[in-house]
Amino acid sequence: MTAFPELYQYFQEALDRNSIKGNPDTLYSPIQYFVNIGGKRIRPILVMMSAELFGAKASEGLNAALAIELFHNFSLIHDDIMDQAPLRRGQQTIHEKHGLPTAILTGDATLVLAYQYFEKYPAEVAMELFKIFNSTALGVCEGQQVDMDFESMKDISVEMYNDMIRKKTAILLGCAMQMGAIIGGANKEKQALAYEFGIQTGLAFQLQDDYLDAFASSDLSGKQVGGDIIANKKTFLWLRLKEKANAEDLSLIKEWELKKEFNAEEKVQFFTEKMTAYGVKDESKALIEMYTQKAFESLDHLTTSSDAKRPLFELANQLLNRKY
Amino acid sequence: MTAFPELYQYFQEALDRNSIKGNPDTLYSPIQYFVNIGGKRIRPILVMMSAELFGAKASEGLNAALAIELFHNFSLIHDDIMDQAPLRRGQQTIHEKHGLPTAILTGDATLVLAYQYFEKYPAEVAMELFKIFNSTALGVCEGQQVDMDFESMKDISVEMYNDMIRKKTAILLGCAMQMGAIIGGANKEKQALAYEFGIQTGLAFQLQDDYLDAFASSDLSGKQVGGDIIANKKTFLWLRLKEKANAEDLSLIKEWELKKEFNAEEKVQFFTEKMTAYGVKDESKALIEMYTQKAFESLDHLTTSSDAKRPLFELANQLLNRKY
Repeated sequence: MTAFPELYQYFQEALDRNSIKGNPDTLYSPIQYFVNIGGKRIRPILVMMSAELFGAKASEGLNAALAIELFHNFSLIHDDIMDQAPLRRGQQTIHEKHGLPTAILTGDATLVLAYQYFEKYPAEVAMELFKIFNSTALGVCEGQQVDMDFESMKDISVEMYNDMIRKKTAILLGCAMQMGAIIGGANKEKQALAYEFGIQTGLAFQLQDDYLDAFASSDLSGKQVGGDIIANKKTFLWLRLKEKANAEDLSLIKEWELKKEFNAEEKVQFFTEKMTAYGVKDESKALIEMYTQKAFESLDHLTTSSDAKRPLFELANQLLNRKY
Repeated sequence: MTAFPELYQYFQEALDRNSIKGNPDTLYSPIQYFVNIGGKRIRPILVMMSAELFGAKASEGLNAALAIELFHNFSLIHDDIMDQAPLRRGQQTIHEKHGLPTAILTGDATLVLAYQYFEKYPAEVAMELFKIFNSTALGVCEGQQVDMDFESMKDISVEMYNDMIRKKTAILLGCAMQMGAIIGGANKEKQALAYEFGIQTGLAFQLQDDYLDAFASSDLSGKQVGGDIIANKKTFLWLRLKEKANAEDLSLIKEWELKKEFNAEEKVQFFTEKMTAYGVKDESKALIEMYTQKAFESLDHLTTSSDAKRPLFELANQLLNRKY
């Protein structure tokens, strides 16, 4: 079983070998630029760890790993347009650098390039990978649409939020795990357990993201961000606070929601204080813990060898104990 | 061999049976709306005609036909954004009706829905269809990018233009024909001839589109459109005129290109007259004729049975002899 740093290195080298070139350069070089911006490469590494867990070599998972990383990049390129984001990891987004039409088109081409990696597998395996990939890709589109719909919706329950992050974030991690299992020749039952590990890790991961956005600074000495709060973003913390708040606080919250001009620090302070006071902060931490436990339970059902589990266990722990 | 009207009817019924529904409705109903706007359904019908030509049933080609029609719709949804087109066949485009983010996302989902139809074939056939579909999809993206690049380029040769329309338009018709051949179990050589029929028909089809945009009214009693001329669109007619024009006319053309405000009718009249005088109009007609002949030659190499060829022959003739 190979640990994260080695797989990360191996994957980066594969990305470099498979550099994206083609004619016209105006289509392909923005894709290469975007892929080079980097990221944690969690999804492709999950594919390879999962392949290893089921007895295949990491290298056998590589093409599926490349497919899922390109899919992830496709979705980021298009999401950045939808969010009108000027930057991604401190670098210009594609629509900012090359304009809207090229950003749409490079996203499209990136999705097709992702699909092409399945051509490298024998037909039966390729079709299994293809099916889970298709349904996941549709699910991610659905999750993104629901997330956008939330912006103009009034009553969003925590349950609706969970459904949304499941689709928008968690199923791609589930897909990564299941693809590794398929490549390792696992049966449907084991594939489902691998998928479940990815789902639960993904849910924990997203809640952790939301948590850190609000509370990173109060736990650490870093700067207060609170970007989600400033933007009225409907996160678990936000929605659950509205569920629990008494009438007086609820009307204060609604006032904040409507304010166009305000002191950002004051708004973030108001919300983080209320989230703490109503126990929503603790609830969020408990939920993250619960999803993590569920992820590990799925893993326990797959193997009793702690050596075999270690890389996935460490990866999940690392994701969920990050401080920023 | 089934003729166009029957296949059209059959395909429309299949589209109705496979109506696009799902959750959230905000993602899926715009897709269904767009598919319902309709169109000539040439590409899916080519798939089924080609399948029949190679001894399969039209129904065996249906899922690939649905895939290619959805792909075509995906590309139109995104092209309409890039072109800022408010209308498609007199109906509101998706970005106009539902906003940019939903238009991007429904396009993405439509592409994935297209891919899903390949799941319905046995693995070996599915993978063959998948490969030609992937390379075609990338080629269409490349063609669209080159077309956009043309807008800000000064020196575009007729050869560059031909490369562009080959990718943007013709290869999807080639892909349709080849998919039918794959489904019919044709060997590589016959697949290539089928592909070539699609390519040549596609080239003729695009040139005919450009020709009609400029000359439909002078040949018929319809109204003058000349939209391409008004927009300085680099068509074969435009590029070839610039190649052939003498110094005096070339400087007049360049003046027209730079004018921001002008009488549209006057501009169209100037260009159509010059295109006629320099023989570019006739050259375009001759080219359309040549591509059509090449298409029919490919067909002749495939079969000597005029009964088997008839639907494809009629379809090509109908496309190329349309008057608007």
